[in-house]
This record gives sequence, structure tokens and C-alpha cells, in this order.
Amino acid sequence: MRERNHFFLIFSLLCYSNAVHIVEPMEGNKNASEKKEKLADQIMQNPQVLAALQERLDSVSQTPSSYIETLPKAVKRRINALKQLQEKCAHIEAKFYEEVHELERKYAALYQPLFDKRRVIVKGEVEPTDIECEWHSDGEEEEKLAAGVKNKVTIADKEPSEDDNPKGIPDFWLTIFRNVDMINISLQEYDEPILKHLQDVTVKFSDPGQPMSFTLEFHFDPNDYFTNSILTKSYKMKSEPDSSDPFSFEGPEIIDCDGCTIDWKKGKNVTVKTIKKKQKHKGRGTVRTITKQVPNESFFNFFSPIKVTGEGEELDEEMENSLAADFELGHFFRERIVPRAVLYFTGEAIEDEESFEEGEEGEEEEMEGEEEGEDEEDDSSNPAV
Amino acid sequence: MRERNHFFLIFSLLCYSNAVHIVEPMEGNKNASEKKEKLADQIMQNPQVLAALQERLDSVSQTPSSYIETLPKAVKRRINALKQLQEKCAHIEAKFYEEVHELERKYAALYQPLFDKRRVIVKGEVEPTDIECEWHSDGEEEEKLAAGVKNKVTIADKEPSEDDNPKGIPDFWLTIFRNVDMINISLQEYDEPILKHLQDVTVKFSDPGQPMSFTLEFHFDPNDYFTNSILTKSYKMKSEPDSSDPFSFEGPEIIDCDGCTIDWKKGKNVTVKTIKKKQKHKGRGTVRTITKQVPNESFFNFFSPIKVTGEGEELDEEMENSLAADFELGHFFRERIVPRAVLYFTGEAIEDEESFEEGEEGEEEEMEGEEEGEDEEDDSSNPAV
Repeated sequence: MRERNHFFLIFSLLCYSNAVHIVEPMEGNKNASEKKEKLADQIMQNPQVLAALQERLDSVSQTPSSYIETLPKAVKRRINALKQLQEKCAHIEAKFYEEVHELERKYAALYQPLFDKRRVIVKGEVEPTDIECEWHSDGEEEEKLAAGVKNKVTIADKEPSEDDNPKGIPDFWLTIFRNVDMINISLQEYDEPILKHLQDVTVKFSDPGQPMSFTLEFHFDPNDYFTNSILTKSYKMKSEPDSSDPFSFEGPEIIDCDGCTIDWKKGKNVTVKTIKKKQKHKGRGTVRTITKQVPNESFFNFFSPIKVTGEGEELDEEMENSLAADFELGHFFRERIVPRAVLYFTGEAIEDEESFEEGEEGEEEEMEGEEEGEDEEDDSSNPAV
Repeated sequence: MRERNHFFLIFSLLCYSNAVHIVEPMEGNKNASEKKEKLADQIMQNPQVLAALQERLDSVSQTPSSYIETLPKAVKRRINALKQLQEKCAHIEAKFYEEVHELERKYAALYQPLFDKRRVIVKGEVEPTDIECEWHSDGEEEEKLAAGVKNKVTIADKEPSEDDNPKGIPDFWLTIFRNVDMINISLQEYDEPILKHLQDVTVKFSDPGQPMSFTLEFHFDPNDYFTNSILTKSYKMKSEPDSSDPFSFEGPEIIDCDGCTIDWKKGKNVTVKTIKKKQKHKGRGTVRTITKQVPNESFFNFFSPIKVTGEGEELDEEMENSLAADFELGHFFRERIVPRAVLYFTGEAIEDEESFEEGEEGEEEEMEGEEEGEDEEDDSSNPAV
């Protein structure tokens, strides 16, 4: 560790990875401002609170927007000119993100041979050479420790059969799905035998000149569950400032998604289940039992997302949340899981993310000023001569 | 709001903005693994805990790394091959970020005319035309509300003199500094009169072919405090995977920074203060008072950062934290404050960030599966036929 001392403290500028935001749905905004409106009304009816509020507005600790209100008209006018310039910046920024998207497309082609190699190793179509399999796990304290614990524990373990040599890396994608909480939460026991047939997940970008989008492709071995060899989920993006709120623009956003029809074999559709329902006849009072198909929890519902509809229909909060989670998962597949699959298989990527979060929390504390008061200090902090 | 219904739920993919990570300093990592080592030792000495641990390792809920340990040798070997491929991906990713940096340089030139226009309006060198000052603040519920509260409250307010027309936008940058918590925390009362002379903040990128870096330039009016017209702070970056830990690569990182010498006028240096110290003579027991210059808290310490040194010196935790905060602020200047200054002046950018955070918190809840159990369901969840 000593040799890379000057790198011991690094600050990642990172982008395009793990940096995802959910923009608060409009509906929520409306509710929030209704609440504020109500609160303002209440304040207006209470002279004491009003006086206190006035004091706050006059004090240095006033909010930025109330400070703006106190500025002379001529200055407010100039601020509007700056806002116009800012809106122009947002449109330039949109072009920047379009160019970044082009770059991503270009690099997708550069990664592809490596992903192809990964696929054939996972499927067992190619056995990597000894040189290709060399790996130093120095510095991975975590791993060494885990191995250490394991070694001591395995005393009671059943000996693994040394000649056990399955094809490729069995359950590669299924294991990844289990390791990623965001997927694992929707994973059902009956999904797992199906996902054992998942052989690859790939990302396809929209062609140049086309509206910005990407498609996740899930490649399956022939199996007893459905006839499709590829299941797809595509995400439509938008990279332009909203004219009614240009300053909230932060780069491309996912605005819609589309699944695919799964051609389930007879009796294999895990996304529906048959329930028995008792019906009581109103007049006669007799009870009969009918069977009915209802939606069933399954990872495969990922391919039948809620549609973001036009004018007619309105989504309730639950649907909004479910859609937001879907967008987040689609983004996560594209940005993290597909490019770094092996790290989600081994768990290394998951540990990394946890230590990131810890790092960020710790970072807040450091903003507290340091104090070193060993000397008896004069309280007047006059500049020195 | 009705007309943009299909955009009501958007998922920002954003990058290059507000997406900053502090990579946990190595020192912290070492401590953490020491703790783990100790814990592992304790576990090893307790057979009951050991048995429980064994059970956990055998169960489905085992950790990813312990699962890897159970795999046959041949499979582990293939996983190493995938890790080699993954390391190659990290190097391709590094090239991608270099190209993105080139793009940023290109776009910096496109933004510049708008930033120049901003500067002359702020300084009052140019008065914007009426058309340039048109601004619709529809949809800005927040602002409307603030204005509403203000209208009712101002009854008791002193009338602002209508003919009050200062030059440009007074205290533009000082106000921004006050509004941004990360800066405000280091802002002292005696810094403020100096910062009234700050006229512009700009970002300069390193030239193509040069090591990746950027320099913040703080442009000052002639003033009574120092003779410099520009104060600079430059940040050195690194965009390549670390050979000992290639998988932690997440794009460019700030690895070092450099300030500048401020040529303070006599008696104006706010970064030092004179203290009086009482010294007791050991032999005679007499007490004398000496004066001494010691560091003083000030925003201007931003220009004398702690140096990330080589082999010889070691930084303590406090210095590490202070440096991490410095890197974060440098990044924030470049990514947010300089490109969106007016929004930090009005406070709009700050409100946006708060609502972002709320959005993200809310989003976690939505992962809970929805349940709609109105029907009396058969517990067996057989796929429907």
C-alpha cells in the first residue's frame, strides 16, 4: 500500500455509472405544493407566526428566493437575462449528452468482443487457456479473509468431489440475479429453474439518427417454459430540456419502456395463477366455486411493464412507483450488470457499492471545521500584520 | 400540466453532475479489515458461533464470496478468465472517459460566449435588452408561493426606493457562496467584504495531450485586500484503472490540487491572525506575553490546500477529510456552480437538489411488492394452464 501513497486519497468524478435519479413524479409535486399552500394559509391567519416569519425574512438567514424578492426591479430584470442565458446552456448541454450517447454506441462495439468471449466461457463453448485464467487477488483483503474463514470452517465440510467439472459456469446469470437486491426482490422460487436457461444478457443501442433508446436482450437456451430464444425490454430516452422547466435538465432520462410477448408453453406461464373464488348467489344464497386466472408475482413480469399512456388514462401512485423501479432496474442492467457481470456473480461489485455508501456518509462529517486550540487565543480575530 | 402527461414520470440517467463519490481512503480500509480480522479471530475461538456460521454458509442465504468458494476448481478457473476480461473492459472504459473529457473541452468553448455575456451583465458593463429579459416563471409553484407569502407580509415592510438602480447584479458571487452550504461553512464575516469584489469564476481545462486537469479561476476587481486580479485553484485528475484494484475504476478521479499565492496587502491577510500567548519563565516564575501568528479560518484557505505528498509524509485522518472536502468543492464548482451560477444565486438549484433527494428516498419504498388480495386465493401458486 505504501507504494501508491499519493493515490491514497482519490475523489471519483464518475459518471455514467450508478448515478441515477428518480425525478419526483408531477403528481407528488402537486400534492406537495397543495400542502404548502395550505400551510401558507394557516400562517397568514396567525399574527404572531407572521411577525416571526417577517423577522426571519428580514434577517441574514432569509431564504434565497425571499432575498431575490427584495432586489430592485432593475436587478431582477438582469437576473431574468441570466435565466435566458441559462436556458440556452441547457440546450447546449442536451447536445453534449447526445454526443456522449454516440460515444457510448462507439464504445459498445469495442466492448463487444470481450462480452462475446465472456458468453462462450459461461456457456462452456470455449475453455480458457491457463494464461487467460491467471489472477492475482492481492489487495483484496475481503477475499483473503473470506477464504481464511472458509479454510478453518471447512473442517466439518463434506469434501467436494475433485472431478466435478460442469460445463462452463453454471447458473451464472441466475446467481447474479440472486445477488442484485433490485432483481432478487422480484425473484420467485418458480422463476429460478427458468433462469437457469438464461445464457446471456446484452444491450443494444438505438441506431444513429433514431430517437435515443436501448434494448436489453435476454438470451435463453431452448427450454421447457417458452419458445422465445430472446426476451427483450426496450427503454425510450429523452435528452432535451423541458420547455416549462428547462433548469431541471440533467441529461438523458428514461421516459418509457416496452416489453415483449413471452410465448409460454402450455401450463408453464408463471406470471399468472389460477385461483378459486367462492361466489354467493344473491337470491338463492347458494355458494359456488369458480376458478379464475390472476396475475402472479414473477421476475418475468419485467417483460410486461405498465404502459406510460397518453391523455386518457392516469397512473396511480403505486403504478408510478412500480414504473420508476422498472426504469431504475433497466438503467442498472445497462450501466452495471451487463458491463460488469462477473463482479455481480462474485459479489465484488456489491461490496464496492456498500463501501461507496459508507464513504459518502463519512464525507459529510468532514465538513465540520477542525479546531486546534492549544494556545490561549485572543478572541479578536484581527488579520495579522 | 395535463399536456405533458406522458412525461410525468421520468427517470434521469444523468451524469457529470452532482454525481460525486469519495473513494474511501486506504487508511480507512486498513482499519476496517483489521477490525474484521479481529472479529474472525474471535469467531474462530467460539465453537457454537462457528457451527452457526457453518450453517449460514451452507444455507441459501450464504454470501456471494462464500458461494464462490464452494464451486469446483474448473469453474473457479473460468471465473478468473472472466476477471481478466473485466480488467480489459476497465481499460477500454478509461479511454471512453478520456474521450468524454475531450467532448467536455469542446463544449466548454460552446458555453463560453454565454458565460461571457453573463459576466458583463453581472458586472454592469452591458444592460440587457427588454427581449433578453423576458421570463415566464410558469410552473414554478415554489416561486409563486414565495411571492404570495411575500405580498401579504410586505404590508409592514419598508417601501423599497423605486429609483434604486445599482450597477449590474451586486454581490452576485458572494450571494452564491452564501447559498451553497459547502462554501458557506468556511465563509467568515471578514471574508465577505473581499468577496464583494469577486466578478467571475471560470473553469479552464487542460490542453489536449496534457495530463487531465482543470483550473478554477476567481476573477477579482481591483481591491484593498490583495494585488492579484485572478486567484487560481487547479485539480489534477487521473483516468486509468489502478493495477492493484482495477474493478474499482469508475471514471476520472481528482488526485491532487494546487492553490496560488495571494499577495495580501499589508494587514489584510484574513488567513492568519495574531494571538497573544502567556509564557511563564521556568526559573524565575515571571509571566510574559508574546504575540504569534497562527492560521485563521477563512474561505481564502481554499487557495492553500494541504499537499498530497509522496513517500515521506503521512496525512492524518483530519487532513484526509479536509482534502476530500476540498476535492468535492472543486468538483462542485466545475460541475454545478460555474455552469449554473444564476440558479445558485436565486436558490432554484438548491431547491432542485433537495427535491431530488426526497425523490430518491421515496423510491426505495416502491420496491416493496404490491399486494391486491381482494379475492380469496388458493395458496398453491400453480402456473395457469
